[in-house]
Amino acid sequence: MNGKEYTENNILKNEVEDDVVDPWNVVSKSETGVDYDKLLKRFGSSRIDSELLERFAIVTGKPNHHFLRRGIFFSHRDMNSILNNFESGKPFYLYTGRGPSSSSMHLGHLIPFIFCKWLQDVFNVPLIIQLTDDEKSLWKDIDIEEANKLAYENARDIIAVGFDVEKTFIFSDLEYIGQCPNFYKNMVRIQKCVTFNQVKGIFGFGDSDVIGKISFPAVQATPCLSTSFPHIFENKKIPCLIPCAIDQDPYFRMTRDVAPRIGFQKPALLHSVFFPALQGPKTKMSASDPNSTIFLNDTPKQLKNKINKHAFSGGRTTIEEHRQFGGNCDIDVSYQYLKFFLEDDEKLEQIRKDYSSGALLTGELKKILIETLTPILQQHQERRNKVTDQVLKQFMTPRKLNYNL
Amino acid sequence: MNGKEYTENNILKNEVEDDVVDPWNVVSKSETGVDYDKLLKRFGSSRIDSELLERFAIVTGKPNHHFLRRGIFFSHRDMNSILNNFESGKPFYLYTGRGPSSSSMHLGHLIPFIFCKWLQDVFNVPLIIQLTDDEKSLWKDIDIEEANKLAYENARDIIAVGFDVEKTFIFSDLEYIGQCPNFYKNMVRIQKCVTFNQVKGIFGFGDSDVIGKISFPAVQATPCLSTSFPHIFENKKIPCLIPCAIDQDPYFRMTRDVAPRIGFQKPALLHSVFFPALQGPKTKMSASDPNSTIFLNDTPKQLKNKINKHAFSGGRTTIEEHRQFGGNCDIDVSYQYLKFFLEDDEKLEQIRKDYSSGALLTGELKKILIETLTPILQQHQERRNKVTDQVLKQFMTPRKLNYNL
Repeated sequence: MNGKEYTENNILKNEVEDDVVDPWNVVSKSETGVDYDKLLKRFGSSRIDSELLERFAIVTGKPNHHFLRRGIFFSHRDMNSILNNFESGKPFYLYTGRGPSSSSMHLGHLIPFIFCKWLQDVFNVPLIIQLTDDEKSLWKDIDIEEANKLAYENARDIIAVGFDVEKTFIFSDLEYIGQCPNFYKNMVRIQKCVTFNQVKGIFGFGDSDVIGKISFPAVQATPCLSTSFPHIFENKKIPCLIPCAIDQDPYFRMTRDVAPRIGFQKPALLHSVFFPALQGPKTKMSASDPNSTIFLNDTPKQLKNKINKHAFSGGRTTIEEHRQFGGNCDIDVSYQYLKFFLEDDEKLEQIRKDYSSGALLTGELKKILIETLTPILQQHQERRNKVTDQVLKQFMTPRKLNYNL
Repeated sequence: MNGKEYTENNILKNEVEDDVVDPWNVVSKSETGVDYDKLLKRFGSSRIDSELLERFAIVTGKPNHHFLRRGIFFSHRDMNSILNNFESGKPFYLYTGRGPSSSSMHLGHLIPFIFCKWLQDVFNVPLIIQLTDDEKSLWKDIDIEEANKLAYENARDIIAVGFDVEKTFIFSDLEYIGQCPNFYKNMVRIQKCVTFNQVKGIFGFGDSDVIGKISFPAVQATPCLSTSFPHIFENKKIPCLIPCAIDQDPYFRMTRDVAPRIGFQKPALLHSVFFPALQGPKTKMSASDPNSTIFLNDTPKQLKNKINKHAFSGGRTTIEEHRQFGGNCDIDVSYQYLKFFLEDDEKLEQIRKDYSSGALLTGELKKILIETLTPILQQHQERRNKVTDQVLKQFMTPRKLNYNL
């Protein structure tokens, strides 16, 4: 390890040589997308290697999720310590979040939640989901009420993923911070340990940024402290595991710096790659650009049109060329999406071979993707429609969860 | 008005030519203390002149409090608009606060509360008292629990001033922010309107300050928005009047800048002079220096000793000289304290004359002060002892107050 590159918190936004990766922007210069090897080195996290994958399977006694097998979750911090905990029967909890920026979530937003559901199932642990409506109001041109409404809309999408209400607490910052004195107390504890210089270095904030943005990282850090949820963890200090896309890592590098100074364990992390925009892996899917995005409430027709019209193809210009030279799965968005959503490994491998050889045409690949995603969206929509106001309220009410500490 | 001097928010800490006056420091170069004329000009507030004093008396139908008559509250912002409101039967509320830094408050801390009690009595309005235990934990080397405990201790002293429990709400930030979603929502609204550049200019914050300090001004600003107290004001927007020592003005200059941008009226202010340290008017009384301070829980003996030993004298070196040339009331701390605590105008004027002429010696003046303060402290202590846990809880429980909006 050679100094600078590996120091957790000295990664200035402006120092980035290639890809821009921070909580607000993901832009790669390469058509194959972000160089995750470099990112891993730059962020100083650890690769999820075959050894860890094996241990995962042994400890859980379950086959690894395809997100793990396929390197979609590819990086971690302190995952071994979480597995040690689990093996010796000690508790931990999952924490992830969502910045509610549109009334419907998109396909990419599902990734951490699908994975959290699997983790919750195999480890049988509580899951905390933070909806950062305060953040969205600070960063976007939307007011508090609008941001809070979006939080509720997103919560419906999240619940539709299938979480166990007995083990899951979903909260809006704008509401829960005003419901739990322990949360605000922990926020202040964290805010006391982080200087403007530090958030400037980690997040690239400047003098003309509003003080709400400058202090927000403490809000996202606070759920890493289990005492922020006394209704769930009483006043016990329980370790925390955060599955998230790797652009959120800066928040938790900061938290890992602070936690031991205020008597808590550093949170562990599992990092995923980004879910590519329809236009290609240079950027991630973003709710603010509808053309780049498949929303969870898209109709089958919208889905079909978007994929056929916008999904960037790794195929050749003519059928003849394609048959002769084959397509490029590394940049083909339809193939990439199948890696996320087609669970059958053999089928996926066959598609990869056929597309690479030219046996499978872009139109045919897109058709497979449409056939894969259509039932996923439809089933999601059906489940979302079943999320009554009462169910929503149940998930979002601070309460005891069904879990022995 | 000539530009710079009068702009509400451009007063850099470092630009101060003479006296240092900010929420954390009051140091004057002059032995007569802070030059309030200059400060008034520098802060751009308005003098409480004879015209306003007259109007005060007419509108309330009561003789003005001696703090008003004697220029102890000497400066204001928009007080006329509050009086207009009151005259036309429209509601307003009082807001003041306390940063709990020691378990007993001192004599100087009483000033805004004594005045608030009078204002509450003559205007018959609700009073909100914010205990900024979060601030104290951020600025001092005390943890959250300790700061919160001090808030409760200070609340006992404040209640002992004699507030009407039906019209007064006292709260600790560390608790109330976690009890009222509206408060945090308003905090975020304010934090969205203030940049780091602004708090740097107003409060002198720097890059190495922690983000808790940087965002704190929004916490002190939030009680200026009546919707932060839905249990009292429902969701109505009610104007706010803040009686405070003038060193707190920077917070409210900032708030006055923000309030109209988020749909609220600017808070009005009544500013007091500082309560001098025992060592003289160059600095204000401070709980962190016990020798400079008369605590509200001092015994009669401690009080007597402190005044006799430490109270800075404006008298001459020898009795002969004093008899011949007289003492200087402008710098004599005992006389200054009598201005605050001896209500009888005639008696005070006689003392001033006698001390200035040399007829009254320093020892005699100190004796009068001791005789004036001893019963005040004793009565305060008696009232404080009567503040049961139940009474304390009642004042600090978010609840409806007895007031028609």
